[in-house]
Amino acid sequence: MKKEQKNPKAVLPKGFKDNDEITIGVRKKVSKTIEEVCQNFGFRELETPAFEFTDALGKFLPDIDRPSGGVFSIQDEDNQWISLRYDLTAPLARFVAANYQNIVKPFKRYQSGNVWRNEKPGPGRYREFRQFDADVIGVQSSNIDAELCVMVAKIFEKLGLSPQDYRIKYSNRMIWNDLFNEIDIPLNQISEVLRAIDKLDRFGEDGVRELLTTGRKDQSGDVMSGVGLSVEQSESIVRFIKNGDKSNEQILDFENYLSNFPNLSIDFDPSVVRGLDYYTGMVFEAELLFTVKNNKGMDVIFGSVAGGGRYDKLISRFGKEDVAATGISIGVDRLVYALQQRNNLDVSENPLVVIINMNSEKLSEYIKIAEELRENNIPCEISFGSQNLGKQLKYCDKRNASIAIIAGDEEFEQGVLSIKDLSAGKEISKQISERDEWKESKAGQINIERQNLISSVLKIIKK
Amino acid sequence: MKKEQKNPKAVLPKGFKDNDEITIGVRKKVSKTIEEVCQNFGFRELETPAFEFTDALGKFLPDIDRPSGGVFSIQDEDNQWISLRYDLTAPLARFVAANYQNIVKPFKRYQSGNVWRNEKPGPGRYREFRQFDADVIGVQSSNIDAELCVMVAKIFEKLGLSPQDYRIKYSNRMIWNDLFNEIDIPLNQISEVLRAIDKLDRFGEDGVRELLTTGRKDQSGDVMSGVGLSVEQSESIVRFIKNGDKSNEQILDFENYLSNFPNLSIDFDPSVVRGLDYYTGMVFEAELLFTVKNNKGMDVIFGSVAGGGRYDKLISRFGKEDVAATGISIGVDRLVYALQQRNNLDVSENPLVVIINMNSEKLSEYIKIAEELRENNIPCEISFGSQNLGKQLKYCDKRNASIAIIAGDEEFEQGVLSIKDLSAGKEISKQISERDEWKESKAGQINIERQNLISSVLKIIKK
Repeated sequence: MKKEQKNPKAVLPKGFKDNDEITIGVRKKVSKTIEEVCQNFGFRELETPAFEFTDALGKFLPDIDRPSGGVFSIQDEDNQWISLRYDLTAPLARFVAANYQNIVKPFKRYQSGNVWRNEKPGPGRYREFRQFDADVIGVQSSNIDAELCVMVAKIFEKLGLSPQDYRIKYSNRMIWNDLFNEIDIPLNQISEVLRAIDKLDRFGEDGVRELLTTGRKDQSGDVMSGVGLSVEQSESIVRFIKNGDKSNEQILDFENYLSNFPNLSIDFDPSVVRGLDYYTGMVFEAELLFTVKNNKGMDVIFGSVAGGGRYDKLISRFGKEDVAATGISIGVDRLVYALQQRNNLDVSENPLVVIINMNSEKLSEYIKIAEELRENNIPCEISFGSQNLGKQLKYCDKRNASIAIIAGDEEFEQGVLSIKDLSAGKEISKQISERDEWKESKAGQINIERQNLISSVLKIIKK
Repeated sequence: MKKEQKNPKAVLPKGFKDNDEITIGVRKKVSKTIEEVCQNFGFRELETPAFEFTDALGKFLPDIDRPSGGVFSIQDEDNQWISLRYDLTAPLARFVAANYQNIVKPFKRYQSGNVWRNEKPGPGRYREFRQFDADVIGVQSSNIDAELCVMVAKIFEKLGLSPQDYRIKYSNRMIWNDLFNEIDIPLNQISEVLRAIDKLDRFGEDGVRELLTTGRKDQSGDVMSGVGLSVEQSESIVRFIKNGDKSNEQILDFENYLSNFPNLSIDFDPSVVRGLDYYTGMVFEAELLFTVKNNKGMDVIFGSVAGGGRYDKLISRFGKEDVAATGISIGVDRLVYALQQRNNLDVSENPLVVIINMNSEKLSEYIKIAEELRENNIPCEISFGSQNLGKQLKYCDKRNASIAIIAGDEEFEQGVLSIKDLSAGKEISKQISERDEWKESKAGQINIERQNLISSVLKIIKK
């Protein structure tokens, strides 16, 4: 009992997970596609570290329920607080402010990396996830905001999605600010009001009405406090969600660019406000429209996978002048999950040749075979796990190996190798535990001349 | 004054850094080579998250000078401590313990990822750095330890290094334990003794003598306390550093495998003990022997870039039986830095075509040009930064763009485009700020038919 208490548990903290070869493979494929499209749009790569000074990141996260504001923070040895980045935008703003004199403007960079949020984990909601961001610093015109949305649509299409599978919605924070001004919403309530609007998808129009005024009680009895607006103010906002107001120069520029791409699914939707506090102008959000199974096995529309917008004040926080800035952030893990559900992307395992270890005195011969295969870029290994042939063949099965090479004294004397095509011999090999039985079972097995190793192996692998 | 205090500083915490496109590019090339070699040796990829429970990671770091033991730790909301991984081995042990029934054994996995150490940063010493690990779980025979060392040597060779450029040294913790037993070193002093031996490269034989006995004062007057061994014990250890003792079954197995690779630079060196506390058998260390400039401009031998060994007790910490385990860890960032110093790896920038924005009313035409180029995988962008031709051409220069496409009313009417080969016209374009001047300067400039866009651009780019 005492000993058990001393042993650490082999578990992960909530909100973190291991990724297997397939998930990593799909993610690499997705990331490569995103990267190539971004490069084709003239972006270059940059990498900032995981940690930043906490005050450099700023408090822009919508989740303010937790004391730490949703961020993983640590006090450094000189008592300064440092935090793990919660997005890739705030670190970019720090980078631009720090290197403003040396960077080429307009500055177009992309970055792929993990971000961390110290939030309550839930099904499909992790505290570590990968984002891919592309940002443009130093361009005022909202043509570039539109170009970012077009780029995201192109990425989706290159990943096999059609305009029916996704929708990119855009709006503008300035048209909301104009409305808030008109209906006398005080500055210090704006964040709260935006957060209420942002919940339209989850709670519907009436839910937003409740959140804007007296508050909302959900089915479980949990109460979300209201912003305290008047019914008139709340109705103005709900009306604006439906109709909006496009008489804004940024939206005109945006749509002027967009008119060249009538086949992409990119639409005006005033209700898009984005959760993060740092946006100042155009905001956009990309959602996938197809259904996936949720953790209860129910069909649900997948929803948001990317978002972004203009943040012209984020760099001036560092004591500089305002710098025009806009960007898009793609939730790579969510996108990978959605594409895996659709089976849109095949990731095939590497082939593997296992050299059966029949006789440890023949190690040098096995090594020679392995070397020859590896020089020809054929993944292979000498089986070191067990001396027992049956167990070694079972291992081949479990590893999903393509070929087993079997050679003992006899074969080496004759200058031959036994090669077993495991896709053909799979069923039979499960029942074999003796060399003799193996010899009798000819399924998928051929004898080849030692010098024909590579050509014979390639013939089976490429079949 | 007040405002300045409020602004966060645009700086990074010590020990962290931004990476530019070139560094990332070299790292990708290096990582891809490492990955391919590992795959050829039968390894498959796995990914564990950045955070683990602190007790699952264990206290194996050699740096115990700091209260947190060199680890970044945070108390989670249920008061449990979680930490950022300081290596990729401890998380693998947790993974294997958690999934022991489901994984195929022998289990061969590689992982590439950042690790974090909350240590004192210094020149070239970062608190976030990338490691690439390959491990084998479930093989007793030290043939596999030798194979890991051979694999590292093959990686070096594939990266352009010769046996004169690197040395892989191996030893065994068991032969040291035998010695410690013989000369009556108590168990609780062994870690300290190993750390003293590990400093041989830095302080030399006499330095180790001092550290093992009464302590060592360096030139600056800083005192490192000694382990307190007797002179006899210390002399036994120093003698052993030089001669060692190979009568160990693991070393025999290791050398039996190794004898098949006489051309690789892999040698016995008893002084290799490795800093991390969890090793139980064979230990190895790879160093690069060529010189690089240190931060003071002096030539220094580069030193260690990889290490590893056998850790047969790490998985049983989780309340399981001992599981044979061994692995190698490559310091990717250090390796990248060393190869960059040698200019071993060329990373060429992507080409870039900039479409000059002569007339915003022609946006649709510019977009069509951009679309056509991107469909042919030619990175390009419409210049949105400035309307001024001179500034746009300067931007092309700074971005190191290959081609500028110039087209206004005149060109579109005639169905032509002006294409400027910037490598040819670089010098001249610096001095141009007017359209007329540009027209006169014909360097590197050609007029092409609109329909010949792609072929003309490719001709210049591939030149």
